[in-house]
Amino acid sequence: MKNRLNRELPDSLPEIGQLRPYNGAFAAIPDMRRCAPKVKYRFPGNKKLREDLESVFDEIPVTDGMTLSFHHHFRNGDSLVNQVLDIASRRGLKNLRIALSSVFPVHAPMVAHFKDGTVTYLDTDYMSGPVAAAVSQGLLANPVMFRTHGGRARAIECGDLHIDVAFIAAPTADEYGNLNGTEGPTACGSLGYAFPDMEYADCVVAVTDSLVPYPLQKVSIPQTRVDYVVTLPSIGDPKGIVSGTTQVTKDPVQLKIASLASQAIVASGLLKNGFSFQTGAGGASLAVASYLRKVMKQKSIVGSFALGGITGYLVSMLEEGLFERLIDVQGFDLEAVRSLKSNPNHLEVGAGMYANPFNSGCVVNQLDCVVLGATEMDTRFNVNVVTGSDGHIMGGSGGHSDAAAGAKLTIVTANLLRSRLPILRDDIVTITTPGETVDILVTEYGIAVNPRRQDLIERFTAAGLPLMTIEQMKSLAEEIAGVPEPISLSEKIIAVVEYRDGTIIDVVYQPAG
Amino acid sequence: MKNRLNRELPDSLPEIGQLRPYNGAFAAIPDMRRCAPKVKYRFPGNKKLREDLESVFDEIPVTDGMTLSFHHHFRNGDSLVNQVLDIASRRGLKNLRIALSSVFPVHAPMVAHFKDGTVTYLDTDYMSGPVAAAVSQGLLANPVMFRTHGGRARAIECGDLHIDVAFIAAPTADEYGNLNGTEGPTACGSLGYAFPDMEYADCVVAVTDSLVPYPLQKVSIPQTRVDYVVTLPSIGDPKGIVSGTTQVTKDPVQLKIASLASQAIVASGLLKNGFSFQTGAGGASLAVASYLRKVMKQKSIVGSFALGGITGYLVSMLEEGLFERLIDVQGFDLEAVRSLKSNPNHLEVGAGMYANPFNSGCVVNQLDCVVLGATEMDTRFNVNVVTGSDGHIMGGSGGHSDAAAGAKLTIVTANLLRSRLPILRDDIVTITTPGETVDILVTEYGIAVNPRRQDLIERFTAAGLPLMTIEQMKSLAEEIAGVPEPISLSEKIIAVVEYRDGTIIDVVYQPAG
Repeated sequence: MKNRLNRELPDSLPEIGQLRPYNGAFAAIPDMRRCAPKVKYRFPGNKKLREDLESVFDEIPVTDGMTLSFHHHFRNGDSLVNQVLDIASRRGLKNLRIALSSVFPVHAPMVAHFKDGTVTYLDTDYMSGPVAAAVSQGLLANPVMFRTHGGRARAIECGDLHIDVAFIAAPTADEYGNLNGTEGPTACGSLGYAFPDMEYADCVVAVTDSLVPYPLQKVSIPQTRVDYVVTLPSIGDPKGIVSGTTQVTKDPVQLKIASLASQAIVASGLLKNGFSFQTGAGGASLAVASYLRKVMKQKSIVGSFALGGITGYLVSMLEEGLFERLIDVQGFDLEAVRSLKSNPNHLEVGAGMYANPFNSGCVVNQLDCVVLGATEMDTRFNVNVVTGSDGHIMGGSGGHSDAAAGAKLTIVTANLLRSRLPILRDDIVTITTPGETVDILVTEYGIAVNPRRQDLIERFTAAGLPLMTIEQMKSLAEEIAGVPEPISLSEKIIAVVEYRDGTIIDVVYQPAG
Repeated sequence: MKNRLNRELPDSLPEIGQLRPYNGAFAAIPDMRRCAPKVKYRFPGNKKLREDLESVFDEIPVTDGMTLSFHHHFRNGDSLVNQVLDIASRRGLKNLRIALSSVFPVHAPMVAHFKDGTVTYLDTDYMSGPVAAAVSQGLLANPVMFRTHGGRARAIECGDLHIDVAFIAAPTADEYGNLNGTEGPTACGSLGYAFPDMEYADCVVAVTDSLVPYPLQKVSIPQTRVDYVVTLPSIGDPKGIVSGTTQVTKDPVQLKIASLASQAIVASGLLKNGFSFQTGAGGASLAVASYLRKVMKQKSIVGSFALGGITGYLVSMLEEGLFERLIDVQGFDLEAVRSLKSNPNHLEVGAGMYANPFNSGCVVNQLDCVVLGATEMDTRFNVNVVTGSDGHIMGGSGGHSDAAAGAKLTIVTANLLRSRLPILRDDIVTITTPGETVDILVTEYGIAVNPRRQDLIERFTAAGLPLMTIEQMKSLAEEIAGVPEPISLSEKIIAVVEYRDGTIIDVVYQPAG
């Protein structure tokens, strides 16, 4: 079958089941009830503290084929996933399903567990490093399920992703299972991606390296949903939270793109009191924020909130009074961790409140503007952030599709060429985010506006911004670098890309050879 | 059929269905899944603000037979229930089921709605005033369902109490439905009793008299569960929160009882660093707290937390460093409201975290000591707080049974005579709280210890406390006041008393004549 974006999909896949084709960003209307988790109980006097993870494995017990979930708030500093999977492997467990909200290079040991059959299924929102390479090489028994951050929350809440045991790395815990991420020697900030897991998993195991007296003061995850508490010498290294640069770029091309993007935001009319904004942690994204900061200071504009993964740069804008609030589903550096702990205007939210499309209203719905990246884009503004143009997996949506769907103005910024190849194609390897939710592409050569947004074309024209059609932009790229060769893919599906509403927007084929 | 406490129960009742007999405080083990609420959605740009309650009634629409829920955080200052029921009545709605966590004298207009059939069923944890009198007179079409505060949360979460529309009086709201109770001109403090309603109701309507810009800083109830926001000129009068005295009693008999109770707490060995405590807002309860305060100061004891309905007296103990935290499901006065807003050691919890027996562990499980009241007690330590000894409804469990079940030391304090009648009986009118969860009765004549607690008898004997058996205490009362006449009851059941686990501990018959 083909979905609305003309992507060919199988009817079903092993371990995943029937696939529902994507039919438009707001076409799926839920007519269902939430997942009904197990009702638990715990009598007075009954303790939750357990000596080690092994005894929790025994007591639950963890068995073949179970789905174990984890959050990625330590990013490349996480050590819990590897510790848990080592135990599972030593116990000879097989066919485990791992639901880890994002996968980083630090998770390289998982590849050995793919090979020996300990892990045969992976459900994630993003992956990079050796695990991504191994999946691209076809080493995992089943296709990876890629979700968005909001879609993962939806999948858990709606019962598409059933979690048998959620392991929650908790920088601070009391012995009755109240948890937070902002205190303790390995504070990582927000625990937002673990919120759906704790609410719906059959069993919740908190793992901490900092046990404090009951009751914990600041509770992010409450005792009512935590079944066991285990202390370990270490659950992660918060230095690993920072992946890549969190400084404003100095690259002149990226600065030019950022400047154009910020001019587009100004020209859109959205940059006024109450402005809300999301951007990533990369140097180019921060450059957009730095341009906006200048304008906001000049014009005495106070924004309502900045959202998403939070960086020190956004913290400084909060502290300067340029935003009223930060809404934080994930910390991108230690400044974000410090601020969440101490600033009452810095709010922690769960993945569902951040971006689940199927609740009474998530925060991305309130976004004025988001600035996003792309590995490729087609002339219908569909965006790829899952695979490189060589077909290898190198990322994932994360909150990309969520913020794009929610924001009034969705900007994709990219160098027109990437590794000397045009990023604009007639057909891209993988569609992650549908073009109907993307408003403009900004490159170093100018701005292409989605024809759906005639209002923006008028405003940008009036502001004298350098506009091009997306086709003109593509021709320009091809003039410079030539038309890229189509890449060669095998027929083996190595990943499924789920849109935030649970429909399938694309599948990923293993690169050939 | 008879339950384990030998109370005769019908097999079923109209509007309530099958009754499951109480079989022991920790006998019911849940083997079920949680209620699965409707999955909702709200696209970007779609607003929640509605002009008035009438338009919300139209849009939902509210129809005959629906269950409408409300919280009681304004206590006797609530005005939302009356406003909503007036609209329902004007629209000619019939057979509404009202799930209001507690009913106060201010809700007197509900009696007219009983009479005209607008309201035919009431589900509550406590009632006093004209509504209680009307129920005692048989004016409500169906028996009232009395739950405990923790049991109400359980009933909602487990699907026994399905809510069609939850109306949440919110002292502060933003227009996307983030709510709190601590800000705004009518701040009432904790919104804890509304937490289960917002999580499980088919539709959630927030009603506020103070709308603030998005996003609200301190979110007690999140936008993800709120469907509509309505502003009204007034939702309640916080002065009505204070019902009865919140001053330490000056009555010498009550002071004697409080002194004995505090001596019992000291002798129990529980009063040491980490001590946790719950008591009510009455003058005698506060007197116990005042005696403990002296001892804690003398001995430099720092308790871990005080729990429950929070008074200014407990706030002052927090501020003096005598407790590390207050855990607040309900404010009993404006000092509690002020403290919750400003003190990070004053924590707001929902009814489920407070006392639901069927989650991974509620806070009452962590209680060392609770001091509770009684209208009557039998020689098996079973307690009545639902009816007076004349059979008329005059209260309800609230958190009584919950805290009794959770605490290591459950103390009931009472004057031995009440309205010149012994409070100790062979048989009490209504059993609210089972004797197996009550450890001692303290009256002005001494202390009776439940024979289950030989450890306490030894400790109290060693401490030289004035001990009596419960039978001796009862004989003493009868020597003073005579054996009370049995009261005359009709055969009509006017209320069902559900234990916190969902089983039925007793039914209430209409007083005769």
